Amino acid sequence: MRMRRIKWAVEYLPTSSSLIKEPEQLKGKWKEFLQTDRLHLEIGCGKGGYSAAMASLYPEEGFIALEYNDSAAGVAAKKFDEIKGHKPVLLWKNAAYVTDWFGENEVDVIHLNFSDPWPKHRTAKRRLSSPRFLEQYKSILAPNGEVQMKTDNEDLFAYSLLAFQDAGFRMDDVTLNFRKEPHDEDPMTEYEAKFVAQGHPIYRCVWKRNK
Amino acid sequence: MRMRRIKWAVEYLPTSSSLIKEPEQLKGKWKEFLQTDRLHLEIGCGKGGYSAAMASLYPEEGFIALEYNDSAAGVAAKKFDEIKGHKPVLLWKNAAYVTDWFGENEVDVIHLNFSDPWPKHRTAKRRLSSPRFLEQYKSILAPNGEVQMKTDNEDLFAYSLLAFQDAGFRMDDVTLNFRKEPHDEDPMTEYEAKFVAQGHPIYRCVWKRNK
Repeated sequence: MRMRRIKWAVEYLPTSSSLIKEPEQLKGKWKEFLQTDRLHLEIGCGKGGYSAAMASLYPEEGFIALEYNDSAAGVAAKKFDEIKGHKPVLLWKNAAYVTDWFGENEVDVIHLNFSDPWPKHRTAKRRLSSPRFLEQYKSILAPNGEVQMKTDNEDLFAYSLLAFQDAGFRMDDVTLNFRKEPHDEDPMTEYEAKFVAQGHPIYRCVWKRNK
Repeated sequence: MRMRRIKWAVEYLPTSSSLIKEPEQLKGKWKEFLQTDRLHLEIGCGKGGYSAAMASLYPEEGFIALEYNDSAAGVAAKKFDEIKGHKPVLLWKNAAYVTDWFGENEVDVIHLNFSDPWPKHRTAKRRLSSPRFLEQYKSILAPNGEVQMKTDNEDLFAYSLLAFQDAGFRMDDVTLNFRKEPHDEDPMTEYEAKFVAQGHPIYRCVWKRNK
């Protein structure tokens, strides 16, 4: 999700207690740090609504939300700081370097929700499902780890189906209208609800790292 | 496509000059028989509009249209008989036995257009992209052969993405809105045009037999 600059959020961000400023120091130690056996990483968390709702729904699991845009990250930071119960931590980082902050086999689930489609061919390599990202995901995912993608963008979804295949992932589940049935196990953000209300299908795929 | 009984078509079918009554006699000899280097097989051709239009568009290539429903096959037979130029031949057969009529590596392109989705779990094995069919397609396809599927049914398409993967096919091209762009190389039937006019997306995938 791309957004305009939000001044208060940009100013708030560095003061947030949810923000992990030196994630490289936790590389290989995230499960210990978050006291969990199952680690989720949402890449491109936007305003943080999904990771916040997931943390509330799965209090035994660990949630790390990553966002590069400072306005979005600042909104997410404030949202996380205000949560009383189980909540995500935030990384304000460029996803191109996830292997700097996560060790091999460390992450159980990577979430890609409504990622920027970067529709032009010349910016295709910025897509979070482009080959250089997928190679990094493979490295940090546990052997039975998975990537879960949801999007309303048909072109990004088609691109991703081929890109994950070509990177050696295996589709484990795919649906072209995820919200046709209720899925209480996967919280819907306001952003997603807007598309669903407009009657737009939500595409979803889960890929496993290995056969 | 399922349809009601059409009496004239059922009666016409056995009299058609386009109908190949004993296809097992042409097994391994179709390219010679049709005088072509490139063989197409449409499985579930319905009223035959797609194969007829393809034959007109690609006069150097050979087209075989297969349909089990006698009413649909009869309509297709009459359509083919009335074509003056290059036209398909018709098989009035159950697709479950394609290896009886085609040799190994004999077919270059298999077309699955708007196949019956058989939505209920207990009838899933009748889907033309279910495992027992895919094993037969692999057998009759040329090493660089491909299956092209178009459908308006999101559940059948999602099912097929997994089924082809699990049978060892490789996705070569996939789109979730095939008719958003013009595709003059792939004729649109009346049946398909009806869905497109309603604003329904056409899903399309091309799978290759081999890496």
